Amino acid sequence: MGKIILKVRKFILCFIIIAMCCNCNTVTKNEILVKTKAALEEAIHKAKPGDVILLSNGEWEDIELKFYAIGTKKAPITLKAQEKGKVFITGKSFLKIGGEYLKVEDLHFKDGYTTEKAVIRFKVDNNKIAKNCTVSNCVIEDFTQPDRNKKDHWIEFWGQQNQLDHCYITGKSNQGPTLRVFLKGNENINTYHKIFANHFGPRPRKGGPRAETMQIGDSYTSMTPAYVKVENNYFEKCNGEVEIISSKSNFNEFNHNVFYQCEGSLVLRHGNYNKINGNIFIGNDSSDFIGGIRVINTGHWITNNYFYNLKGKEFRAPLAIMNGIPKSPLNRYNQVTDVVIANNSWVNCRAPFHFSVGANLEQSDVLPPSEIRSARPERVIIANNILYNESYEDIPIVTYDKVDGISFYKNISNNPNISKVQTEGIITQKFETKVESSWLQISIAINETPYDGFEFEDRITTDLFGNKRVNNTIGAIQIDGKNISKEINTNQYGTDWFHPNDKKVTEEEFTVNTAKELKVAIEKTKEKAVIYLTGNDYELETSLHIKKKIKITPKGSNKKVNITFISDVPAFVLHPNANLEISGLNLKGNKKNKAFTTLKELMHSPYNLTVNDTNVEDFQTILEVSKGSFADEITIKNSQFANCKNGILLNKETNDKGDYNAEFLKIENTTFNKIENNVVDYYRGGYDESTIGGNLILQNSKFINCGRGAKNEILIKTRGIVNMVFKDNTFTNNAVDYIAILWGAKGQKGVNNTIQNSGILKVEENLALKLIY
Amino acid sequence: MGKIILKVRKFILCFIIIAMCCNCNTVTKNEILVKTKAALEEAIHKAKPGDVILLSNGEWEDIELKFYAIGTKKAPITLKAQEKGKVFITGKSFLKIGGEYLKVEDLHFKDGYTTEKAVIRFKVDNNKIAKNCTVSNCVIEDFTQPDRNKKDHWIEFWGQQNQLDHCYITGKSNQGPTLRVFLKGNENINTYHKIFANHFGPRPRKGGPRAETMQIGDSYTSMTPAYVKVENNYFEKCNGEVEIISSKSNFNEFNHNVFYQCEGSLVLRHGNYNKINGNIFIGNDSSDFIGGIRVINTGHWITNNYFYNLKGKEFRAPLAIMNGIPKSPLNRYNQVTDVVIANNSWVNCRAPFHFSVGANLEQSDVLPPSEIRSARPERVIIANNILYNESYEDIPIVTYDKVDGISFYKNISNNPNISKVQTEGIITQKFETKVESSWLQISIAINETPYDGFEFEDRITTDLFGNKRVNNTIGAIQIDGKNISKEINTNQYGTDWFHPNDKKVTEEEFTVNTAKELKVAIEKTKEKAVIYLTGNDYELETSLHIKKKIKITPKGSNKKVNITFISDVPAFVLHPNANLEISGLNLKGNKKNKAFTTLKELMHSPYNLTVNDTNVEDFQTILEVSKGSFADEITIKNSQFANCKNGILLNKETNDKGDYNAEFLKIENTTFNKIENNVVDYYRGGYDESTIGGNLILQNSKFINCGRGAKNEILIKTRGIVNMVFKDNTFTNNAVDYIAILWGAKGQKGVNNTIQNSGILKVEENLALKLIY
Repeated sequence: MGKIILKVRKFILCFIIIAMCCNCNTVTKNEILVKTKAALEEAIHKAKPGDVILLSNGEWEDIELKFYAIGTKKAPITLKAQEKGKVFITGKSFLKIGGEYLKVEDLHFKDGYTTEKAVIRFKVDNNKIAKNCTVSNCVIEDFTQPDRNKKDHWIEFWGQQNQLDHCYITGKSNQGPTLRVFLKGNENINTYHKIFANHFGPRPRKGGPRAETMQIGDSYTSMTPAYVKVENNYFEKCNGEVEIISSKSNFNEFNHNVFYQCEGSLVLRHGNYNKINGNIFIGNDSSDFIGGIRVINTGHWITNNYFYNLKGKEFRAPLAIMNGIPKSPLNRYNQVTDVVIANNSWVNCRAPFHFSVGANLEQSDVLPPSEIRSARPERVIIANNILYNESYEDIPIVTYDKVDGISFYKNISNNPNISKVQTEGIITQKFETKVESSWLQISIAINETPYDGFEFEDRITTDLFGNKRVNNTIGAIQIDGKNISKEINTNQYGTDWFHPNDKKVTEEEFTVNTAKELKVAIEKTKEKAVIYLTGNDYELETSLHIKKKIKITPKGSNKKVNITFISDVPAFVLHPNANLEISGLNLKGNKKNKAFTTLKELMHSPYNLTVNDTNVEDFQTILEVSKGSFADEITIKNSQFANCKNGILLNKETNDKGDYNAEFLKIENTTFNKIENNVVDYYRGGYDESTIGGNLILQNSKFINCGRGAKNEILIKTRGIVNMVFKDNTFTNNAVDYIAILWGAKGQKGVNNTIQNSGILKVEENLALKLIY
Repeated sequence: MGKIILKVRKFILCFIIIAMCCNCNTVTKNEILVKTKAALEEAIHKAKPGDVILLSNGEWEDIELKFYAIGTKKAPITLKAQEKGKVFITGKSFLKIGGEYLKVEDLHFKDGYTTEKAVIRFKVDNNKIAKNCTVSNCVIEDFTQPDRNKKDHWIEFWGQQNQLDHCYITGKSNQGPTLRVFLKGNENINTYHKIFANHFGPRPRKGGPRAETMQIGDSYTSMTPAYVKVENNYFEKCNGEVEIISSKSNFNEFNHNVFYQCEGSLVLRHGNYNKINGNIFIGNDSSDFIGGIRVINTGHWITNNYFYNLKGKEFRAPLAIMNGIPKSPLNRYNQVTDVVIANNSWVNCRAPFHFSVGANLEQSDVLPPSEIRSARPERVIIANNILYNESYEDIPIVTYDKVDGISFYKNISNNPNISKVQTEGIITQKFETKVESSWLQISIAINETPYDGFEFEDRITTDLFGNKRVNNTIGAIQIDGKNISKEINTNQYGTDWFHPNDKKVTEEEFTVNTAKELKVAIEKTKEKAVIYLTGNDYELETSLHIKKKIKITPKGSNKKVNITFISDVPAFVLHPNANLEISGLNLKGNKKNKAFTTLKELMHSPYNLTVNDTNVEDFQTILEVSKGSFADEITIKNSQFANCKNGILLNKETNDKGDYNAEFLKIENTTFNKIENNVVDYYRGGYDESTIGGNLILQNSKFINCGRGAKNEILIKTRGIVNMVFKDNTFTNNAVDYIAILWGAKGQKGVNNTIQNSGILKVEENLALKLIY
């Protein structure tokens, strides 16, 4: 009987499929090629189901596009490029989509920015919200605000059942998440939005919060059922801030994404019952900022994920489980409860588990009770995971509070568990692994039956690579699973026509003998150049404006080259994206000019500066930056600074919202002599525990006769800066009360410094900061 | 082709049904009659799918029953009475259910109480939680704790897919919700529990919080998806507290229940996205406490409900929409957002809509910011409702803050909207109605097309009585709907064997001539009696213990009868459920005894006391109650009290958790002369804005020469008591600083009182109370 039913069913199914196909064919496509803005608007206005509006090849500048129309499921209305890769949206432009069954394809946004809140928004207005609309195969490239402090989003999801797929999105450096899902209002919940097969390309470090690559909801809508699915995307170096993705709503899913060297985490910031399944997190040896998953709130399932070579800690730990605030306010930290973390693998991660992250009971003096995270995780199950580490650094658990609400079952570690948390649920077992690729290392045989938890059988049905878990084994990858993807095929993400990695930058070389030639070479540089100086002395009356990656250094000589800046304008002006390295120079000022500055405004993207083996003297100021500017890294090494009034001033972000002017300031093996005021003034304000920069590395350097004008002051001001290395320095005859005031709670301390007649190096445990939230 | 498919499908369906039926028949029922506790335990221990364990007829005393077994869907395991109505669970007993597919039927819990936290619990222990278990056709009657302050629940839901149906539950008078659903832990969410066809019989007023008839989750699990369905139940006089049902989780449904004269509301206290559809709320002319629906949080849909003759206001308004606390702590008040209130009817309700209930910005002096409800409702839609009132009292909107987040569409009122909120969305239209029954009044013709809101068509598909809304009309009842239930058929609720309304109480009469006869008559009273006094003087050496409803009065005479209490014991001792009325007496004490007291402990149920046309003198104390005791109503009228040291002391609930000793104290047309200390001391402590008792009505009374021992004190102490009428009284020569200190924020004020040489009557706007939460 069963067979008969099956046959009848197959027959019915075939019939339905045929019927559907026939239906499809009956839809006639009506292509309308538009060449002007007016024609485009008219085409949209008149659009009928099945219409395909083609934007003619070329540049469409300053278009403010409202694509409102009603298509049907069978016959959507499409807006697309005449030819892929040949239609550019530039200037002050945006696209708003509203209506039903609309498709947008093949557009390339570049060389511009939006004048509204979003570049692409799935809503024309509150009465024209998008439903069942898709944006596919588009590129948004460096479409960032000229003013980095101006906030916008590049994609705003509203409505329901909308989709972003196969897009490439990169280069947002201003305030605001790249993609944001809005959930305010009944029309915008139960969204079932899909975000898949996109390539989220590099987003530079922003410094401070509000630079997520994706934010789904906010704390005020964190009770809403969102049902957003983020699947099979490739996140590459999304370094904006500590949260790559900030999930702030319920029932979202994050499946099979790859996070490649992203300096942040996938964070379950607000909302509950999210699923994180089958994702790959890949770190590297050089960055301590690359994280994994951070957990807050209730009922999440974290399964089948693979974490490789992550060195982040605390907020950016490979797995961070936070402490909550008891009876937390809506916008702060709920307790973690009822979370399941099963069948994941952490390979070569430094201390994979950080528990009770954010615990801050000891800061009760400087924080109100509504900021004290003392509610420990409860009813958390950690089961069937693999912890593999080639070295013994793998603790594997770092704790910031008592661990009494986390249960461990059948987790296998190849190293002994030397942490404070001793449990039968972490079993030490030597097991074989196989290195499949630069990041994939698979355990071959583990001799343990997995733990069978509540609903495990129904909810953990496949592995990292989609193999069915018939006889479940421990770890992210089913031991006998047939499908394995050793390499990340970047072609399957983003568009089928724009290939970011094809863009090759070639390094130019210039040899210059005169000041004029130097200026010309700087101006002529396309992307990247080394400028060799062949003369001995260069005298400049105007500033050198740096917009590209440029290295300036003497041509094959051990002798330093003199560059004298005789007028009052700054010596070097750093523009957005500037990356300047100087080496082997004597820079001399006129006592009234600045050695290095940024533009005064519109510093839309970060810059880098390296000063190596260089003498800098007789300037008014060594470095002065503008509000809104941001240095990715400033490196000073093997150099001498003398006879300047002001030192390095990274102190313009004073709004106390967690922002700051430089991610890294590294000073090594350098001497400061007769710098009159503060040698360093580096500031970050606002109590934002998830801002975990800036970073000052100060070592092996000398400070002599500085700070005369900064009496009763601090020689090296670092208020609010989070990370610091302060060692092996020598301070002699500096007329200040304090060398520096370090922040004890952040682990800052002086190591092996020599201080003579120079005030004291103070450590203050807690810092009273302005509350942001 | 379609037809062929249909036929094939029908054939398959028939086949499946036949196959299933055959399967059913193959299950053999194995009945096991047990007569002892040991036999019962053995039967449970050995139970196999299909077993029916029969408890033999009779009383099962002190049984602590753990019913753990694994049945199957087709063959559940049943535990039931040998014969319905003949098996009683008494004494210290409870029932815990754990496992799968279990059924409990036909049991009668009475004359006892649980020694654990619950009477019936769907969990044996954390490893034996119930799933797919049902409790049907059972009675829990007056199974209340001897100590009213001891907390328990009668039904505790845990696990998933459990059910309570056709039960009758009445008489819980102690702390704790009658039925509570627990949602802590992944095993206890997504419950899909069903609670239907039950009769929740009278639950007396408790005084203060923690006396809900049903509570689903708590604030700490308010983020969980509960999916509890409460359907077709009958709630009769569930007066425990302001919340009949306290929904504290997500995705619950309350459909087609009847709330009959319940002094409270269906409250969406925590959690979001609940549905309240097709319920009937019926009030009466006498109670101001009967409410409708109170709304907090996000995304609820309130549709097709019918509200009749409700006089509650503020927290108990027919529709109360609250203000929230900005960024509210988890356990307080979230803002109301995205709520839809459509197609309901309010008939003869006094001011149906109360908006921004709980707004308390003006109390910023006495409350911390985390208690200030200043976040007004946002994105609330009120559409297609009917407001019908025979009188013009129908305001219809009372507001406690600005109304700027509520949109009105196509609401029809037969009276002009004379409220502050003027909107086109409330249309005045005279329309015909038809009186169908004592509570059902249907509008016959309304000349307006309903508003068609977002998702209305998908979500408002039927009306109050289940009629399909093909052509939607305004109000709860589809105008052309064919099904109408004019009367509430109470037989469809509760068990099929226990009929609470059949219980008839007959009033006895006794005529007594001596003190001894009086005592005997009181003792002999079964339920209710009138005791006529034929003598002139009665002298008593022992207390009169009142346990029933008893009236004591002279036999057909206008002359008062003297009762003298000569020993130091109290004159009258009121027991739980006592209801004493005295009239036409002269009560005389010995200066050392008390006129009225309660038991010192175990006052498990409320009592009532009426003193009418009686002189009371020479007692140490007029009334002294015990902690834990609770008077429903104390009425004193047309009487004189003289020469007593203490007055009426309702001041023993001092834990400041919102509790108090009496719901109503009514004093009318009565004289107090030479009461040495406070005449009244009536106390409620703790900041609990939803406790809206007690009630003092003091009018037309005289106070002369009182308060000598209460110097610098208050004559009538009412600290924390919420409702007060204080008018037409005369105070002469009372040696106190204050007559009373009234609570201005609660609208208390003195009206037309005459005060001579007696301190002042003060009104204090805000009262600083201890925070409970």
